[in-house]
Amino acid sequence: MTVPPAGGPPPGTPPAAATGRLLAIALPPFPDVLPGDDLGALIADALRAGAAADADLAPRRGDVLVVTQKIVSKAEGRVVDLRTVRPRPEALAFAERWGRDPRQVEVVLRESARVVRMERGVIVSRTHHGFVCANAGVDASNTDAPDLVTLLPDDPDASAARIRAGLAERLGLDLAVVVADSFGRPWRWGITDVALGVSGFAPLADFRGLVDTAGRPMHATVVAVADEICAAAELAAGKTSRRPVVLVRGAPLPSGDGSITRDVVMPEAFDLFG
Amino acid sequence: MTVPPAGGPPPGTPPAAATGRLLAIALPPFPDVLPGDDLGALIADALRAGAAADADLAPRRGDVLVVTQKIVSKAEGRVVDLRTVRPRPEALAFAERWGRDPRQVEVVLRESARVVRMERGVIVSRTHHGFVCANAGVDASNTDAPDLVTLLPDDPDASAARIRAGLAERLGLDLAVVVADSFGRPWRWGITDVALGVSGFAPLADFRGLVDTAGRPMHATVVAVADEICAAAELAAGKTSRRPVVLVRGAPLPSGDGSITRDVVMPEAFDLFG
Repeated sequence: MTVPPAGGPPPGTPPAAATGRLLAIALPPFPDVLPGDDLGALIADALRAGAAADADLAPRRGDVLVVTQKIVSKAEGRVVDLRTVRPRPEALAFAERWGRDPRQVEVVLRESARVVRMERGVIVSRTHHGFVCANAGVDASNTDAPDLVTLLPDDPDASAARIRAGLAERLGLDLAVVVADSFGRPWRWGITDVALGVSGFAPLADFRGLVDTAGRPMHATVVAVADEICAAAELAAGKTSRRPVVLVRGAPLPSGDGSITRDVVMPEAFDLFG
Repeated sequence: MTVPPAGGPPPGTPPAAATGRLLAIALPPFPDVLPGDDLGALIADALRAGAAADADLAPRRGDVLVVTQKIVSKAEGRVVDLRTVRPRPEALAFAERWGRDPRQVEVVLRESARVVRMERGVIVSRTHHGFVCANAGVDASNTDAPDLVTLLPDDPDASAARIRAGLAERLGLDLAVVVADSFGRPWRWGITDVALGVSGFAPLADFRGLVDTAGRPMHATVVAVADEICAAAELAAGKTSRRPVVLVRGAPLPSGDGSITRDVVMPEAFDLFG
């Protein structure tokens, strides 16, 4: 919560000053992504096409590309055909009780390192990466066939790094990359987009111990910059369109080599909510 | 979480299509806000001053003004002088054990309808409004005197409505208003800005049951648009500056009369994390 418990997040991220102006632009509609597709190449193409119509889509140093998890998982072949899945008894019982697909429940349990809550039809678990989210990130909607579900990327930081390298090769420009997904949260209705993986900047801005421009101690301690970037990108792209990539300009990127699983995911020992 | 439990958030908010382009601009530095100040007037002045230097700060229909809680609380006199506070024994014991100010702990307990967690020096509670956050939103930093703490506004939706009315009177334009604060969250380090109050739009975009442009069921169910707007605004303004107000343009505002406490705050009966 606002005051991190003893220990706190990893130190070392220098603060970043806000620019006063943030711009998020969705790239033009994207083709369907297939396993093995080179996302760096597809995004470079979309940036070129977009820049022809909107000069602001010509990428600049300091820009971030926010890529939705779904196309990353598809490109990486992180897709399961439910017709190949045999549910365990626990999955059958839960699915029966709550009107869910037992094969999907089985995949959720396989993707879970530990179930945090499994009640009222909802499964909240900690994934093998350490993310705590609904259904372990297994997603049935919006795929091209009703029996296919996507899993989260195996290593979303590495996914972001690969896209970043592909973009650098094609554009001659080192752009930061974030892989984003929509997570719910306790206590408030509605989902917001957060970062699963990052490359090219540190995802937390650490202001602890600093004073503001007026010499007063800072209100905030550690700001989840990468997550806020994903939220801004979601507003630009929306859910109804086929626009899975957003360029974000003007975000205060903390310098350093970042990782979501290492820097943002709270180890269980520090967490108060099981 | 991603799949709302049975019951779910309040229905009735129509979906809003994304614009493809989001812009967030911090207003120029603000004077210190004092109890009784008219925030509508101060923000209108700052918009005029800002627009002289940056034409994008000339407000347009559909823009949202994001106002940080701190100045709203100050204007409304929601400030407590800790020198007047007598801590209860529980506050003294907790403060002693964890090196905190017992008077501030006392104020936190007074602002709490129910304590959710009180351990390792951290107090997470449900406020009288229903917000679950650290320290019941009581904030000691960034005030002008070390013994003063701010409380959350008594009715942040009403605060937003008053600012909106004040702006409409001065600008002849009905702009949406959000009151924002920085909240932590379980399972992830770092704070993000979320909405405490809203006026002029519905804070949730409800896509349940709809299909996307390709005729496929929507990935997301209910998007927390107001919270994502606050996150984007935080990136533009940052924590180090005296820029407590941000203009956000291009957000897909769901139409309707909105309320954070009524629409976004999850009733305890639906919550899985006590």
